[in-house]
Amino acid sequence: MAPPGNDKAAAEVNEESTTERPISRVDSVGTISASLLTSASIQALQPDLIINAGPAAGFKVYQAKGTSLGDVFLGSDITLLDRRIPIPVLDLYGVGLCQAVSTLNLAKELNLKVGKLSAGNSLDMSPEDAAAITANDAAVKDMEGAAIAYVADLLKVPAIFLKAVTDIVDGDKPTADELLQNLAAVSAALDQAATQVIDSINGKTLSEL
Amino acid sequence: MAPPGNDKAAAEVNEESTTERPISRVDSVGTISASLLTSASIQALQPDLIINAGPAAGFKVYQAKGTSLGDVFLGSDITLLDRRIPIPVLDLYGVGLCQAVSTLNLAKELNLKVGKLSAGNSLDMSPEDAAAITANDAAVKDMEGAAIAYVADLLKVPAIFLKAVTDIVDGDKPTADELLQNLAAVSAALDQAATQVIDSINGKTLSEL
Repeated sequence: MAPPGNDKAAAEVNEESTTERPISRVDSVGTISASLLTSASIQALQPDLIINAGPAAGFKVYQAKGTSLGDVFLGSDITLLDRRIPIPVLDLYGVGLCQAVSTLNLAKELNLKVGKLSAGNSLDMSPEDAAAITANDAAVKDMEGAAIAYVADLLKVPAIFLKAVTDIVDGDKPTADELLQNLAAVSAALDQAATQVIDSINGKTLSEL
Repeated sequence: MAPPGNDKAAAEVNEESTTERPISRVDSVGTISASLLTSASIQALQPDLIINAGPAAGFKVYQAKGTSLGDVFLGSDITLLDRRIPIPVLDLYGVGLCQAVSTLNLAKELNLKVGKLSAGNSLDMSPEDAAAITANDAAVKDMEGAAIAYVADLLKVPAIFLKAVTDIVDGDKPTADELLQNLAAVSAALDQAATQVIDSINGKTLSEL
């Protein structure tokens, strides 16, 4: 599955709408659109497997261990970082831990890194988000993964998360600038990795990944 | 539409799942489940109108103007408070302004307050959330409204938001304690208001509300 980007369809619908909601004509990033798109895609296509490929942010603390701009990660544990509900049990629901298909063989074969992925709806990183990223032990952060993982798990479709690092969210450069500067080049690297993943999994069972 | 609470269905699905995700058996609060539930409900029921009735938080600043625990609000403008994307145009998309059906006659007839509603996935209020609530000029805050408004708008179904104040999120008491303490009594007030709303709108056109 490509990064959620149903901007044209949404814009067309909005344009005809009687409300005065502004027509943004931008990609529908974030967990709301991702959950709707995943649900609709599963219902329409009944896929054997979902591959969520998209940009992600890395962190200084992991950069120190060798993470660089352009690295492509396979997500292992998937969590939400911005659904904080400090009531027992609801706190665990809020984090929403899901597990991706184990892809250790794939990672070795294609020389991809494996790490935990945590998703939040905001591009910036508040102190609360940073604390959640640390608590979730996340190597990379995106804005949709946990919604896709939740819906895939609910509808019993296995999922793989392929995330390319476009920016270091706690780094020296403003996140939005760094993201936009690197998006084209990193998307090309992601495109190549996604093609390799699809070629490699062709004909294999899930347990072979 | 009642507050999202598809816990049993979700728990049953999870129980059979092969992943090791913990089974939380709590209500599925927040925007991800609300968007899925709204989409599925509209597809299944093709309703003329959605009424999203549920608990909400008020704020000190509005309490000073007369807002009290147990007040029932009709939401006017609906926004998201925790999708911060500081890139031009995407920032507006992030806030996701939708407008509810105008219900000024209904508010007058049933003596309900009218105010702007802003939704976020967290029960607590971070400084970033507080700033967004101020920027969105919100009178009440919930955890689902903006997702329901977005899907309803996308699928062209008019929506009304009926929100009863269970806690003052920037007040003196811990939010979770205050919420749980007041939930039963405020839910009864909300139940009464929802019944009055349904009785009142019966046979009317949208423009008469």
